[in-house]
Amino acid sequence: MTKLQEVLDEIALEAASATDRGAVAHYIPELAKVDPAHFGIAVALPDGQVLTAGNAETPFSIQSVSKVFTLSLALGKLGDSLWARVGREPSGNPFNSIVQLEQEKGRPRNPFINAGAIVIADLILSGHQPREAIGEIVRFIRYLADDDTILIDERVARSETAHGDRNASLAHFMRAFGSIDNPVDHVLGVYFHQCAIAMSCHQLARAGLYLASRGCNPLTGMQVVPVERARRINAIMLMCGHYDGSGEFAFRVGLPGKSGVGGGILAIAPGVASIGVWSPGLDTVGNSKLGTAALEQLTRRMEWSVFGA
Amino acid sequence: MTKLQEVLDEIALEAASATDRGAVAHYIPELAKVDPAHFGIAVALPDGQVLTAGNAETPFSIQSVSKVFTLSLALGKLGDSLWARVGREPSGNPFNSIVQLEQEKGRPRNPFINAGAIVIADLILSGHQPREAIGEIVRFIRYLADDDTILIDERVARSETAHGDRNASLAHFMRAFGSIDNPVDHVLGVYFHQCAIAMSCHQLARAGLYLASRGCNPLTGMQVVPVERARRINAIMLMCGHYDGSGEFAFRVGLPGKSGVGGGILAIAPGVASIGVWSPGLDTVGNSKLGTAALEQLTRRMEWSVFGA
Amino acid sequence: MTKLQEVLDEIALEAASATDRGAVAHYIPELAKVDPAHFGIAVALPDGQVLTAGNAETPFSIQSVSKVFTLSLALGKLGDSLWARVGREPSGNPFNSIVQLEQEKGRPRNPFINAGAIVIADLILSGHQPREAIGEIVRFIRYLADDDTILIDERVARSETAHGDRNASLAHFMRAFGSIDNPVDHVLGVYFHQCAIAMSCHQLARAGLYLASRGCNPLTGMQVVPVERARRINAIMLMCGHYDGSGEFAFRVGLPGKSGVGGGILAIAPGVASIGVWSPGLDTVGNSKLGTAALEQLTRRMEWSVFGA
Amino acid sequence: MTKLQEVLDEIALEAASATDRGAVAHYIPELAKVDPAHFGIAVALPDGQVLTAGNAETPFSIQSVSKVFTLSLALGKLGDSLWARVGREPSGNPFNSIVQLEQEKGRPRNPFINAGAIVIADLILSGHQPREAIGEIVRFIRYLADDDTILIDERVARSETAHGDRNASLAHFMRAFGSIDNPVDHVLGVYFHQCAIAMSCHQLARAGLYLASRGCNPLTGMQVVPVERARRINAIMLMCGHYDGSGEFAFRVGLPGKSGVGGGILAIAPGVASIGVWSPGLDTVGNSKLGTAALEQLTRRMEWSVFGA
Repeated sequence: MTKLQEVLDEIALEAASATDRGAVAHYIPELAKVDPAHFGIAVALPDGQVLTAGNAETPFSIQSVSKVFTLSLALGKLGDSLWARVGREPSGNPFNSIVQLEQEKGRPRNPFINAGAIVIADLILSGHQPREAIGEIVRFIRYLADDDTILIDERVARSETAHGDRNASLAHFMRAFGSIDNPVDHVLGVYFHQCAIAMSCHQLARAGLYLASRGCNPLTGMQVVPVERARRINAIMLMCGHYDGSGEFAFRVGLPGKSGVGGGILAIAPGVASIGVWSPGLDTVGNSKLGTAALEQLTRRMEWSVFGA
Repeated sequence: MTKLQEVLDEIALEAASATDRGAVAHYIPELAKVDPAHFGIAVALPDGQVLTAGNAETPFSIQSVSKVFTLSLALGKLGDSLWARVGREPSGNPFNSIVQLEQEKGRPRNPFINAGAIVIADLILSGHQPREAIGEIVRFIRYLADDDTILIDERVARSETAHGDRNASLAHFMRAFGSIDNPVDHVLGVYFHQCAIAMSCHQLARAGLYLASRGCNPLTGMQVVPVERARRINAIMLMCGHYDGSGEFAFRVGLPGKSGVGGGILAIAPGVASIGVWSPGLDTVGNSKLGTAALEQLTRRMEWSVFGA
Repeated sequence: MTKLQEVLDEIALEAASATDRGAVAHYIPELAKVDPAHFGIAVALPDGQVLTAGNAETPFSIQSVSKVFTLSLALGKLGDSLWARVGREPSGNPFNSIVQLEQEKGRPRNPFINAGAIVIADLILSGHQPREAIGEIVRFIRYLADDDTILIDERVARSETAHGDRNASLAHFMRAFGSIDNPVDHVLGVYFHQCAIAMSCHQLARAGLYLASRGCNPLTGMQVVPVERARRINAIMLMCGHYDGSGEFAFRVGLPGKSGVGGGILAIAPGVASIGVWSPGLDTVGNSKLGTAALEQLTRRMEWSVFGA
Repeated sequence: MTKLQEVLDEIALEAASATDRGAVAHYIPELAKVDPAHFGIAVALPDGQVLTAGNAETPFSIQSVSKVFTLSLALGKLGDSLWARVGREPSGNPFNSIVQLEQEKGRPRNPFINAGAIVIADLILSGHQPREAIGEIVRFIRYLADDDTILIDERVARSETAHGDRNASLAHFMRAFGSIDNPVDHVLGVYFHQCAIAMSCHQLARAGLYLASRGCNPLTGMQVVPVERARRINAIMLMCGHYDGSGEFAFRVGLPGKSGVGGGILAIAPGVASIGVWSPGLDTVGNSKLGTAALEQLTRRMEWSVFGA
């Protein structure tokens, strides 16, 4: 533990003085306003202990990190029949690409590209009102983190909606292929709100703990997903969690992880730890620049890579 | 050990009676002649012990499994400067796709698609005669497996050459972009011969042991690659080792692995085992059908998945 | 004239007994209801005379044929600055493809694929209410055909709107790239209504006469477009008027033409005639099967091909 | 005639003083050596008269203009069965693109992209030796131009061969799909030699005269191709003759035409004239910059556009 805390402190110290921090996402105005100087990291251990460094308690927009939680939620509702609607292969393309979707007749490659996450949102909706589905997602994440203070940032949600043409295009495209059942504006309502959930590194690390602990949340003792499913979600995170930078993340960090354009990353060291890291500046493929570097150092120094100590 | 041997025996028994064995590769005549009834598996442990079941001593054409060894060899020669010539992202496309190569100006996505492996062959050649480069590759694999009986199947090599238009197309395409330095027929000479190397499951499992043992070959005590590099090769195997079926393999098996159209797969459980499996029938994306099923069972029963026990 | 009437009568007679009539468009329910037995043809000559055969007075949904008229209208408003917003190359892709649009950053290849026509609708809107823009388009077509009875089929317009996800996807996609200025639902409102305009072969042939007569409408004596522009619109019709069947149409018919999925085609023999033909059954790329065959015969027998008598 | 000569003289005068002449092709060294200051134009009329201006007697490398002649030759041998091997749609892609070829299983879109012309060369070969096929092509072109002095520039042919990786890639790719029957080096031998044929504008205009004269060569009185076929070749020239600049050429010039990267263009005004023009500088899609501008002026002033006087 002492070593881990030392490593985290050193990582945070280094991050504080980093000059090349990447560029804050500018595709929606609310995200563009975030101060790039932030850096936080939190490591939750299977015994419930959480170690942190930096701005680990500051909430940020989790954006696509939410896709891990909605996938878990939807798998709980539909089981493996979910895979008829969305694949589980890396896309080899940017996060919002529509090209592949045309070639593959509206079935998204995996649940972590935008198109796939929109299908998952459609499945969670399944005839309910958007408000109900959004409520269910928030409750599920609060339950995972064992923290009822987690909220949606409504300004971010509105900003997403106002600048959501690319996602609207994906959703209409899939609906034309019959891949979406609910009205597009309902589905996007859910999707934009899940992306606008705000969490701190501390909360994120706790919320992901079930994936590091055979599907069981040690904070509550609840089996969130069966052990087999936890393994599989980790597999999809490793393969697809960083868009067309997934190979690079596996190469450098060596852990299942899911990034968001808000600069957050959730990474899982199976059996060992759940890690939340945040730094708003992004690299060229849209993943947190300092967040990735921090995880690379952490896994190297703690020998946590799944690819060999 | 007793449990592992029991699991292997049950897997081999089940494979013997499987009715849906996939289709033997037909793209070159020599491979099409192989009897689909074969099934073998071998597990090499870091202490040097090897457990086997089925036809584990029968040599087969390793085909693309050779790409793991040539990548290791080329990294040894060039170090990380190799990555200027080939990427390390999943391609999201079939193994011999040329589309992506056009979009990316002749730089292959990763060293395990055909285009990438041809670049690696070009790097190993680097001004030498094809015969010398082929000799070096065979010697390297013999050294890895600690077995001097490993040979090239010349009939397979000739068959590859006679039916090599698709690979010739890739090589000329890359040469047009300046991605290949040596004459195309030299490069393909090396590439076709490395694919025609014949090994048994037993030999394959031993040859891969360095990747399960922090880069060190426990059979010889030699450090084949630095520990960091072993980890990274494992990462690339997991991300890219099964073409556009890599996500499926990670999802089901949960280990770094590399398949060949001869029906062989090398899989690595870091710190635990190196596994060679062979069954000639392939699934629709070109990976061994029973081989994958065997690995899925093995990792589930032994709890070897890198994504959590 | 006698010969032309004879040729038209023979064509209509042959069409009446044709057994392989293609398949009526089914992408919107209203079009799927149309009786495939219909066939009509009308030829308008520069002197104002119109010769017809078959159901030449029955109105049908002109669909994409409307794109010729909206292009003419928008060029009148914007002049050649319009070409900054849309290209004039054949797309080599189906009419509703989105792939090319991604590669080309939201700028459509030409004004006759759906994406291009949606941009033209956006240009015609330019800040007005959809109702006003729709009114302007209808008035322009009435003026071209010198016929105030031309109407929008409101059931078709509603059906388009209810099944418009593919076009909504294209529009949102372009808006994400800044290629569309007005709200997507306004732009699509205009686009769906222009497609729902109903005209007979007789009306269509008259409306197109300006393109056969150096830009001047001989029915009214009005110069609709400058002579240079008439030529250019004809060029775009030849190159792009039949989607990925444009080459086939040029090869077989040899005239500039624009087809719609309602089964109508407007073809122009420059200096000689404007032809409206209609048969609801479509070939595999979405162009009227008997309509194309009729035009092929007409140009062969009358020696009207632009590629040599 | 006087007016035509005047127009040609003015065009040549203007071309002589043009400052932005485009860039000479650099993909093979021999072409890169050509002086960009050259400009020539020749117009052959159905009565056999030829009017010229500028360097109309200087031979240049006709490159892809040869594809018009090999298509005519191959159609004479195979008739319409040729179309089973190659399509006749615009490609919407650059001249040497391989992407579309993968999507369409090795069948080229049209005979004027490189892949299509290589298939045509394969058909002309049909079991003969390359030398014989090359001889047949040269004899055919001499017969068309009624000029036995036309030769292959052997330095260009060698330069093509030495830098032919992109075309070799296309040829091997198609052979992998079974679209090419003969050995790739034989087929490319023919193809590279046909591209290396040297002709002057004067010779080119005469050679193309059959396409302006209902398939009949007025110089010799021979029917080169049936009238229907002449029309169809013109149609393909218009649709596909300038790669992904075909739409632009139709829009600006309004004539069937075929360009080569040597800076030559053959354009046909059906029933009126065959035009050869040459200026080595190319625009961004690889078509002669001043050549296109010259044709644009010529057709505007002579009112030769097929799209209306």
